[in-house]
Amino acid sequence: MRTTFHQELESIDGKLIGMTQLVQSAMGRATTALLEADRTTAGEVIDDDATIDALRREIDEHVLRVLATQQPVAGDLRVLVAGLRIDRDLERMGDLARHIAEVAAEDFPHVAVPVKLRGIVHSMNRVALRMAEQAKEAIGYRDKNSAAELDREDDEMDSLQAALYRELLTTDVPVHTALELALLGRYYERYADHAVSVAESVRFETGATA
Amino acid sequence: MRTTFHQELESIDGKLIGMTQLVQSAMGRATTALLEADRTTAGEVIDDDATIDALRREIDEHVLRVLATQQPVAGDLRVLVAGLRIDRDLERMGDLARHIAEVAAEDFPHVAVPVKLRGIVHSMNRVALRMAEQAKEAIGYRDKNSAAELDREDDEMDSLQAALYRELLTTDVPVHTALELALLGRYYERYADHAVSVAESVRFETGATA
Repeated sequence: MRTTFHQELESIDGKLIGMTQLVQSAMGRATTALLEADRTTAGEVIDDDATIDALRREIDEHVLRVLATQQPVAGDLRVLVAGLRIDRDLERMGDLARHIAEVAAEDFPHVAVPVKLRGIVHSMNRVALRMAEQAKEAIGYRDKNSAAELDREDDEMDSLQAALYRELLTTDVPVHTALELALLGRYYERYADHAVSVAESVRFETGATA
Repeated sequence: MRTTFHQELESIDGKLIGMTQLVQSAMGRATTALLEADRTTAGEVIDDDATIDALRREIDEHVLRVLATQQPVAGDLRVLVAGLRIDRDLERMGDLARHIAEVAAEDFPHVAVPVKLRGIVHSMNRVALRMAEQAKEAIGYRDKNSAAELDREDDEMDSLQAALYRELLTTDVPVHTALELALLGRYYERYADHAVSVAESVRFETGATA
């Protein structure tokens, strides 16, 4: 029975890693769509979000099935339950990538981001993708130290968001553009927060207080 | 044993309802702090958020303890697991109320919201409090239909947010004010989304697909 349990756990982890891969790819493509006014890519990211949501439901059901049939205790129980938190954070990361793609699609054929702000958005995307990568490793290696690393990356994301705000306040941009850019900045920042949350759930699995 | 399980469940529900009460109170007071530039109240809301976070951890541990000792299956398992989602949504609602209080504290002694936008913010608060009330009832009565009701309230919140944006775009407000108000609007809107999510978790308990 323990072997079966650990096989189930590996299978769930595999799905979580796959889901992280999907939300990472979604963010990368959403940013491309945004910075290059690429409506086709934007549409794909928006459509693909349904797959991410379906995967979340599948993981939920898988975890519940294992909880009901294997009745794990202590550490094993924590690992399973953490899966239910992680898939929600990943689902939300997918939503945020979709929101960015939606802005890109709405503003088509115009590029939503003014030229002088594209560098910051590009950097926010780079940090977001790196954080998704670290979240993937945290799940794959059950690395409880990745939470600290992700915290550092998250600080960089916060600095970028602050820089974006400063630019919006000091540059002469229309209110509409300022609002849209502030919202975009928040999507990247929240995506990063959820990546941190994934690593915190992995740390919780090890028994540390979440 | 079943009696004990149901006693545990009632105790967990009681804590979830208490937590909903706290995040409802936090939102009401945060709005007062915001619209009346009341720094004392803002400070209290900010401090009280630690209590909400502690309650979330307590509920998590309680659920895990019951999962480990009672090993429930099927419907009982779903109810317990839903508690782990609900407490996260509530924690986030508490965070959002705190963010509103933080804006109030930062802008003190000025009222962050221009006179002509106070009515919209006041309405957003009213909808948010009503939604927290419905979330509380959803938990207390395991009412799977409340998700539909909350969806309707959420539509009203979205309309209010759209109205706020229209005002920001058509009124001659400084970019700084526009950005701050857009962010505030988003806090109320996200608070409402999490209330919907609570009701969806209750619906999930009943076996419907989340």
